[in-house]
Amino acid sequence: MNKSKAWTAETIAIGSELLLGGRMDTNSLFVADRLATCGVELRYKTIVGDELSDMVAVLKTAARRVRVVIITGGLGPTIDDLTREAVAQATGQRLSRRKTALDGMIARLAEWGRTPTKAQFRQAMIPTGADIVSNPVGTAPGFVLIWKETFIAALPGVPREMEPMLHDGVLPHLQAWMGRHKQIQAIPVIRRVLHTSGVPESIVDQRLEGLLPAGTMVQLGIYASPMEVMVSLTGPDKESGPVTIDRLFDEARTRLGEIVYGEADDTMESVVGRLLTEQHMTLALAESCTGGLIGHRLTQVPGSSSYIDRGVVSYSNRAKVELLGVSPDLLDRHGAVSAEVAAAMARGIRERSGVSVGLSVTGIAGPGGGTKTKPVGLVYVGLDGGPNEALTKEFRFHGGDRSVIKQRSSQAALDLLRRWLIKKGGG
Amino acid sequence: MNKSKAWTAETIAIGSELLLGGRMDTNSLFVADRLATCGVELRYKTIVGDELSDMVAVLKTAARRVRVVIITGGLGPTIDDLTREAVAQATGQRLSRRKTALDGMIARLAEWGRTPTKAQFRQAMIPTGADIVSNPVGTAPGFVLIWKETFIAALPGVPREMEPMLHDGVLPHLQAWMGRHKQIQAIPVIRRVLHTSGVPESIVDQRLEGLLPAGTMVQLGIYASPMEVMVSLTGPDKESGPVTIDRLFDEARTRLGEIVYGEADDTMESVVGRLLTEQHMTLALAESCTGGLIGHRLTQVPGSSSYIDRGVVSYSNRAKVELLGVSPDLLDRHGAVSAEVAAAMARGIRERSGVSVGLSVTGIAGPGGGTKTKPVGLVYVGLDGGPNEALTKEFRFHGGDRSVIKQRSSQAALDLLRRWLIKKGGG
Repeated sequence: MNKSKAWTAETIAIGSELLLGGRMDTNSLFVADRLATCGVELRYKTIVGDELSDMVAVLKTAARRVRVVIITGGLGPTIDDLTREAVAQATGQRLSRRKTALDGMIARLAEWGRTPTKAQFRQAMIPTGADIVSNPVGTAPGFVLIWKETFIAALPGVPREMEPMLHDGVLPHLQAWMGRHKQIQAIPVIRRVLHTSGVPESIVDQRLEGLLPAGTMVQLGIYASPMEVMVSLTGPDKESGPVTIDRLFDEARTRLGEIVYGEADDTMESVVGRLLTEQHMTLALAESCTGGLIGHRLTQVPGSSSYIDRGVVSYSNRAKVELLGVSPDLLDRHGAVSAEVAAAMARGIRERSGVSVGLSVTGIAGPGGGTKTKPVGLVYVGLDGGPNEALTKEFRFHGGDRSVIKQRSSQAALDLLRRWLIKKGGG
Repeated sequence: MNKSKAWTAETIAIGSELLLGGRMDTNSLFVADRLATCGVELRYKTIVGDELSDMVAVLKTAARRVRVVIITGGLGPTIDDLTREAVAQATGQRLSRRKTALDGMIARLAEWGRTPTKAQFRQAMIPTGADIVSNPVGTAPGFVLIWKETFIAALPGVPREMEPMLHDGVLPHLQAWMGRHKQIQAIPVIRRVLHTSGVPESIVDQRLEGLLPAGTMVQLGIYASPMEVMVSLTGPDKESGPVTIDRLFDEARTRLGEIVYGEADDTMESVVGRLLTEQHMTLALAESCTGGLIGHRLTQVPGSSSYIDRGVVSYSNRAKVELLGVSPDLLDRHGAVSAEVAAAMARGIRERSGVSVGLSVTGIAGPGGGTKTKPVGLVYVGLDGGPNEALTKEFRFHGGDRSVIKQRSSQAALDLLRRWLIKKGGG
């Protein structure tokens, strides 16, 4: 356990629910990423319950083996929120009520027309010598403490509180402290990500074979999830080596071609939204088996109201007839799950709403409702952009439950729209 | 770090991709659950990269603080698969090629018409004194080793290999070993969960104050997320103590009252679905700011097609007029985000679709679109179950982004429906 050679870090996630509560610690992914860009390498992640003595022991172990310790969770107002006590005990500091911490909390609560409860006052108890990290979103303040040449930060477990606090409150402190230890080298590592849709992991793997030259420090990761295959390149920033990570990234993008829908924080819905905005187009949806998921995803993007006019979730056949003008005869002849009905749904929603393009999905999400000829996982997507601009596509999704089939269906529909918009825009 | 009092465990997940690859260790959830039912309490989870010295250090720390160590990952054929070496180094054992391990691997590969590569022979190198755990799915064998009164198991990281190996290969070993240490009490632990909606964590905390009698081994957890506050009671099965976990659970349920919407794996959407089914009611949705999320959530439940007729996502005012019959005059007078429009939307969707009950949401999800009198987070929910059965409710959600406001709005709408259905059903 040699602390002196490099900038190393450990995350400690606190909470018994992370041990036996079926909850995952997702914060450490964000922390790892941000630390890497500062040249600090995450070496360990530890997860521990709400037991004070366990927390103290874990903190002491971390302080022995790394230089930077980021704790998340356990800063709430309840009696099992013991991070403050654990840090105080491990570092031999006292807890005292701090005015900055209290004032921030009172101000935040006042915005919501509330005053602190007795329990909430506990949140202002901070170890002596620590600097307060204010919370721009919730009530619990965080803090930063340097102890025996170890940088310790404690932040709330709620991601939308933790993330801005790490970024605005902790990292500037950390960088200033690192600046005072110039004898320890910091190698900023960056991570570049591509998102692909529509092909399995094995195809992505094949296309990227031999991408990395021998001896490079850049690492390639290929990760499959129900909605996409993600590709990541992780390594030193371009200034540090002869084979730049940017060049490898461009090469990967070229090799993967049209299956790449975005990079970094892009989502399929944000990419589609950008294309619709650029082409001044409006969209209406006719969803069946996805049940509103496509609408939900598209409206996650701020400003989406400027291109989404409406959506219809036509779960029943009657709704398909009444809201979309699908003919009962067509439903009888082909069944609700068919290319014909998908086409009629897309045309129906476009014509009735007067938008540029209509997008539809009909399928069997399961677990019931499948037959031999129309099994669970059979899905049709329809797109209608006006006369001579209609298409449908059949998908057969295997080996997923209802939720996975809904996710993959929504992704397939949005990807069809994406590719159509790109062709339409001449891109 | 007292090892002698109870059966305690730590999981160690091995792999650099779990540190900076954007990948999560999900195996530990499964392991925690299985160990709890054997009376072994998971106290720590550690995640470490492919660095041999880090792995050895982590193993030694674990062996000092717990009785059972379950390692996942690092058993593959490549040179960064170092779990075998790490266990050998930490325990001072030699690695040797073991016939049982090799034979199992050769047999598995033969099924696939292959023979071991040179690299794969490394997978049969097992620490002296360890028992082989055969792999029914892949090639890498696992092993179990007892060292200094610590039970150490090493298993592959792939869940569908790890899970049967833990269950069939490791747990019988563990239980036999526990049987030889009867002086250490094994207390099988269960976990009971309640889900509440509509009040903040601090209120739940207040209502449960003093629930746990002094000296009980049952632990209370209160966990807030954007959509709910979850309450868990974790402790010995009812046979083990005078205050049973079941009695505490019933007491908690009574104290919390109508804010409890479900228990265990219940979700708000499954509970609402059950109530609709019991009362033979059908539902139609008119969503504005939630963009389809309510429809998406309800249709996550298998069989939901029997009570959900349709949904309309009326994002634009024109859609509200055309699809729901909201009068343009009403929109002019009160604005789209108003109790009046929420009521008209719910009535409109119910009347037009002929269902038992219509549910509507209109609000400002942000980040844009807010004003002084109608700020981001202002949301109206409407419910219409026919003449004299209409209600609306105003919500003001603070401190969340667009996604959180959508989530909380969908939860508030479903909770209003839930409470109405319960009253209606005389429950």
